[in-house]
Amino acid sequence: MNAYSEGATSIEQALVVFSGGQDSTTCLFWALKHFSKVHAITFGYGQKHSAEIECARKIADLAKVDLHFMDVSFIGKLGTNSLTDTSIEMDQEKPAGSYPNTFVPGRNLFFLSIAAVYAREKGIRHIVTGVSQTDFSGYPDCRDSFIKSLNVTLNLAMDNQFVIHTPLMWIDKAQTWEMADRLGVLDIVRNETLTCYNGIKGDGCGHCPACKLRRTGLEAYLLSQKTVIDK
Amino acid sequence: MNAYSEGATSIEQALVVFSGGQDSTTCLFWALKHFSKVHAITFGYGQKHSAEIECARKIADLAKVDLHFMDVSFIGKLGTNSLTDTSIEMDQEKPAGSYPNTFVPGRNLFFLSIAAVYAREKGIRHIVTGVSQTDFSGYPDCRDSFIKSLNVTLNLAMDNQFVIHTPLMWIDKAQTWEMADRLGVLDIVRNETLTCYNGIKGDGCGHCPACKLRRTGLEAYLLSQKTVIDK
Repeated sequence: MNAYSEGATSIEQALVVFSGGQDSTTCLFWALKHFSKVHAITFGYGQKHSAEIECARKIADLAKVDLHFMDVSFIGKLGTNSLTDTSIEMDQEKPAGSYPNTFVPGRNLFFLSIAAVYAREKGIRHIVTGVSQTDFSGYPDCRDSFIKSLNVTLNLAMDNQFVIHTPLMWIDKAQTWEMADRLGVLDIVRNETLTCYNGIKGDGCGHCPACKLRRTGLEAYLLSQKTVIDK
Repeated sequence: MNAYSEGATSIEQALVVFSGGQDSTTCLFWALKHFSKVHAITFGYGQKHSAEIECARKIADLAKVDLHFMDVSFIGKLGTNSLTDTSIEMDQEKPAGSYPNTFVPGRNLFFLSIAAVYAREKGIRHIVTGVSQTDFSGYPDCRDSFIKSLNVTLNLAMDNQFVIHTPLMWIDKAQTWEMADRLGVLDIVRNETLTCYNGIKGDGCGHCPACKLRRTGLEAYLLSQKTVIDK
């Protein structure tokens, strides 16, 4: 938690690491509430779902936010994973004692590092990312300790004072839906974002791990609202 | 300093971040002495001197080391600097209170992060880099605190136990020449490496900051040897 969670609005600008998914879209609208001007950066890395980038473009237009695209296909050449290599069947569950093969090694490390260099060029020091420890799913680069360590590393690398904001770090998917609702963008997030591993927008394929997580959260949030209304 | 400085040889493998310059070539031969097998990784990022990569190839062949090339031209698109942009005249001296425009923001951050992902794929945890705090020249990403912070960040990002070795961190250019001599490769380093900002191999153009630093160090080392012999 920080001052921004309490509704303070900064006169400064922010850069959102933006994929067009539920989490980063919620963060985009969170940033619009808390900063005077918001920029977004999205990454293409040879993933199967370029539909994701199309979603990102459409949402950025809706939100009237400048979207900068960076080709980082080198990431796909570094390791082997099922998001960038179509010859590998995607893990639907996390294998015991290992990472799901949807893990792109170092992905958030590269996204946030590139975002930082880009932000520095634009004179922006606030960087917003939708990573969540709650939604950890076996990905080490979603953990709070990684983000904090990276923040220090980036500041030392460029002699700068970046501040990485992670509004979703300690909340679950139901609470992320609640945040979208409070920001007045529940419908946009529900209909325009792409989270599904099989590349289907909105409510998605319904059976991949990302769809299950998203739907369970949405149902829990809608149920809690219904309970409030029924009372 | 660590056990490897004392002459211990590890049964493990190492990956050297290698540019074909004086520092990383000295590190390559240092690694060959201290590890059972050595790999090298070199980066192309749109710099003017692809001659550098040719030097790297030739030295890797001489050392019988596998050289992996990675295209990271995205780095050149992120910021503005005189190494990747031929329209900018190169700073010959560090401007007061600023960085020389030869500074590529985040360069070592990306080189070492990519090296780590590649090393992890190969099952290597030792990474060797020729950065030196002594030779700081205004580059924040050559400092010991940055390297140590990055080491922790990389370990957290990939749940791994990388060890970044920096054999040149606390020694000056004269001592780097001394290290090359003790490793029996003074002539290779002197004749086959490229350090010069103007792309001239060996003793270089003689007047850019890199050539001045290199020559002053070599002269100081050769003089100290002469003094020893004369005694």
